[in-house]
Amino acid sequence: MSFTFERSINYYETDRMGVVHHSNYIRFLEEARCAWMEEMKWPFSLLEENDITIPVLGVNVTYKHHVTFGDTIIINVYTKEYNGVRMTVGYEVKNKENGQIVLTGETKHCFTNRELRPINLKKYNLDFNNKLEETLEK
Amino acid sequence: MSFTFERSINYYETDRMGVVHHSNYIRFLEEARCAWMEEMKWPFSLLEENDITIPVLGVNVTYKHHVTFGDTIIINVYTKEYNGVRMTVGYEVKNKENGQIVLTGETKHCFTNRELRPINLKKYNLDFNNKLEETLEK
Amino acid sequence: MSFTFERSINYYETDRMGVVHHSNYIRFLEEARCAWMEEMKWPFSLLEENDITIPVLGVNVTYKHHVTFGDTIIINVYTKEYNGVRMTVGYEVKNKENGQIVLTGETKHCFTNRELRPINLKKYNLDFNNKLEETLEK
Amino acid sequence: MSFTFERSINYYETDRMGVVHHSNYIRFLEEARCAWMEEMKWPFSLLEENDITIPVLGVNVTYKHHVTFGDTIIINVYTKEYNGVRMTVGYEVKNKENGQIVLTGETKHCFTNRELRPINLKKYNLDFNNKLEETLEK
Repeated sequence: MSFTFERSINYYETDRMGVVHHSNYIRFLEEARCAWMEEMKWPFSLLEENDITIPVLGVNVTYKHHVTFGDTIIINVYTKEYNGVRMTVGYEVKNKENGQIVLTGETKHCFTNRELRPINLKKYNLDFNNKLEETLEK
Repeated sequence: MSFTFERSINYYETDRMGVVHHSNYIRFLEEARCAWMEEMKWPFSLLEENDITIPVLGVNVTYKHHVTFGDTIIINVYTKEYNGVRMTVGYEVKNKENGQIVLTGETKHCFTNRELRPINLKKYNLDFNNKLEETLEK
Repeated sequence: MSFTFERSINYYETDRMGVVHHSNYIRFLEEARCAWMEEMKWPFSLLEENDITIPVLGVNVTYKHHVTFGDTIIINVYTKEYNGVRMTVGYEVKNKENGQIVLTGETKHCFTNRELRPINLKKYNLDFNNKLEETLEK
Repeated sequence: MSFTFERSINYYETDRMGVVHHSNYIRFLEEARCAWMEEMKWPFSLLEENDITIPVLGVNVTYKHHVTFGDTIIINVYTKEYNGVRMTVGYEVKNKENGQIVLTGETKHCFTNRELRPINLKKYNLDFNNKLEETLEK
C-alpha cells in the first residue's frame, strides 16, 4: 500500500539559486509522513494519546531535479521495512506537471514511549503494529 | 544601555530574489535578544529556573536595505519601554561592511510564569526587574 | 473584497514551547498573499512576465492566541490601502476549530520593476492596478 | 586535513519535542561546509567569480543524540572522496559540553558551471582542484 501527498512550493522555500533549498525537502517528507499516518487513522494526536513517539534515526536522500515556487510536487510514501522495532519509510517526490523525479529517499525510525525508551509495537500496541504491517503488503 | 550582536548570513536564509527572506530577520532579532539576555546574566536557562517566560506579543519592523549570503549584520538591541508588566525591545540592524541600515523595528513582550499567567516582575523577581530597569537608563 | 486561505500547521513549524514559532506566521501571511494574488488572476508567474516585483517594506503583527501541530488556520486577506505606488495588506488569522483570533496584522509594500526601481501601477500596468483598486471596494 | 566549525543552537531551531528539528542539521552541515571552503581560501564569492557551483546531489545522515537551545555543537568536516568530478564531504557533529556524537553523515556533490553543466575541476580550475586534493591527504 502506498500513499500520495500533494503540495505546492512556497516562495520562502526557495534559495538564491532560484530553487527549493535542499534542506526543505526533509520537511516535505515529514509532512507527507504525517499525512500518511493520518490516512492510516493513526494521526499524531492518537499516537500521543497512546504514548508512542516515532523519532527519526536517519535520513538518506538523492536529489534528481529542482522545483521552485509555482511548482507542485507529489510525494509517494511507502513502507520499505518494518519489524515492530524499526521502520524504514521510502519516498519518491515528483514534479506534478512534468512527471520528473525530484528526489528519492528514505527515513529510518524506531518507536519509543514518552520517556523515549524503545518499544516493540508487537507487544506495546498491536493495533498500530497491524496497521503498519498491512502497509508492507504490496 | 544598548547591546550589539554580530552575525553572518547563511546561504539557506536567502530566497530566489537573491537576498535574505524577510521572515528570517524576525529570527535574527530573537537571536540578538537571547544574546542580550545572556549579556545581562539572565540567559534563557536562568529564566527557566526562575519560572519566567517572555512571550512575543507583537513584531513591528521596517525593511530598509537587503543583505545576502556573504554579508554580516550588526544588531543593536535596546529597551524602549519597560514597566514590570510589559516590555518593548528596539532593534537596529546594520550591514557591517557599508553601514547601511537594513532594518529597524521592535518586539513587544509580557512576562508569564510556567502556567502562562501574566506576572509583574516588580513583585515576582526583583533582581531581573532591576536589571531590566537598568537597561532603560541611558 | 476579502480572500480566505486555509492551511494546517506542520510539526516542524512548532518550537520547544510546543506552539508555532512566532516567525513562521510571517511566512503563512506570504502564502496567503500569494494565494490571494492567484485568486485575482495575477499569480507570481504573471507578475514576473510583466516585470513587476512587490517587495515587503514592513511587517506589523500582533499575536493573540497560539496554534500548534494538528491545528488548521484560516487567514483572511484584504487590501487596507492602495494608491498605485504603495499598498497595505491586512490579515486576520483564526483557529479554524474554535474561531479564536490567532493574529492580526499588516504588511506594507511598494511596486518595482526588475531593476527594483519603484513604479506607479496606474501608469505601468493599468490591468493590475484596476484589479487592486477593486479589492479596495468592500 | 579536517576542519572544525562551532555553532550554538537557536531557540527557533527547536521543535515541540524540545530539541533541534532533524531538518535543521542539514542546514548546519551547509554552514560548516561554507566555513570550510572559506578556510581553504575558496569562499562562495570566489567560486562565483570563477563560475563554479557545487550542487548537493545527496544527503545521508544518522542521528545519535539530541541537542537543544543553549547547547553548542562542533562540526568536524572532511573530504571522504574527491576525483575532480564528484566529491563526498563527511561530517561528525558533537555536543561541545559532553562530547556526545550528535550526528554523523555525508553530502554528495558535483561541480557545474553557471549553466549548471557538469565540469571536471582537473581541467576547469586546477587551483581549486589542488586545494581539494590536499584535503584528501590524511
